[in-house]
Amino acid sequence: MLPDKLRTLVSLLHRLPGVGEKTAQRFAFSLASERAGLAALLGRELSSLNESIAACTSCGFLADVRPGSPQLCSICRDPRRNERILCVVAKAQDLLAIEGSGAMPGKYLVLGKLLSPLDGVSADDLPIQALRQLIAERNVEELILATPPSVDGEATALMLAQELRAAGPRISRIASGIPHGGDLEFSDRVTLGRATDGRHGVES
Amino acid sequence: MLPDKLRTLVSLLHRLPGVGEKTAQRFAFSLASERAGLAALLGRELSSLNESIAACTSCGFLADVRPGSPQLCSICRDPRRNERILCVVAKAQDLLAIEGSGAMPGKYLVLGKLLSPLDGVSADDLPIQALRQLIAERNVEELILATPPSVDGEATALMLAQELRAAGPRISRIASGIPHGGDLEFSDRVTLGRATDGRHGVES
Repeated sequence: MLPDKLRTLVSLLHRLPGVGEKTAQRFAFSLASERAGLAALLGRELSSLNESIAACTSCGFLADVRPGSPQLCSICRDPRRNERILCVVAKAQDLLAIEGSGAMPGKYLVLGKLLSPLDGVSADDLPIQALRQLIAERNVEELILATPPSVDGEATALMLAQELRAAGPRISRIASGIPHGGDLEFSDRVTLGRATDGRHGVES
Repeated sequence: MLPDKLRTLVSLLHRLPGVGEKTAQRFAFSLASERAGLAALLGRELSSLNESIAACTSCGFLADVRPGSPQLCSICRDPRRNERILCVVAKAQDLLAIEGSGAMPGKYLVLGKLLSPLDGVSADDLPIQALRQLIAERNVEELILATPPSVDGEATALMLAQELRAAGPRISRIASGIPHGGDLEFSDRVTLGRATDGRHGVES
């Protein structure tokens, strides 16, 4: 009963992450009804997206394609970044979140995936060789493992620490504990256990 | 720090209904990363959307544009529909929801808006004249007011009933009460009041 064109659009929007049938329908109706040209603008951007965005050849984050120059993202091109600190994250959005905190002076490497035996991702699928090469080339002092504190994230961090220990850098792991403003009363047991295990001395 | 192209895309996706900055970013990353061509497919569909979908000239629902023929939706074109029952809904999605129930043998009219003094929508902005004309042309027997049971929806239904009473059809309002499977204990007072007021005789 939906027009064919709209049905096609709904099925495509349904493929966006976290978008169900109803939400896709809501987007489609909004796009079809609003006359401010959002559909046409989005259409133009999306049509050329795959040609104009590509993974940064150095860190794996996304970068604008600039013909004739190496495919580097703005962070890898920034000379003020401390090359000797290398932060490993699972996905591009995590890089963005850490950048938003302003706490990272170094550069990044985006793994793209985490160890996950159930999904068939083993150590061979992770860029361990690329990490070894970066550590040697840049003479990296500290390797910060910022994979998420989940089962897969912890396993990946542990494996990377073991594999790269011999390469020389100091290896650290981001802290896991009670989030800023969080309530001890409502924290789960694992988080409280980690917060206690990860306690540090107080300077006075 | 985001590539320019991605920043543009995020700001456009952010204009979709109910999509915040973070969700827009998630969509954009997914579209930029997945290589199955979703971005290109969506791009093509959206580029031509405004040219290939338009409001049905009879009921206001959305219809495929078919050059050379009147712009009618599949419901208005369906000869099996009972023209003498006319159901008034606020928006296209509501029409779709009622169609999904399979309980409506008649045709529809989509108002597109509801009476709302705060938003400056008055009776003059509603298609009362078009409704009068449809009722006369089709010799409508029953006018079903299916605007939502909200303040604006009720006000609109009341106003339409008053304005169109003289045009002749029986005028009815969809029932408001406890939803199927709902719990009396957790229903709000207004809903319970309506369920009680709207009680009907039980045949045995």
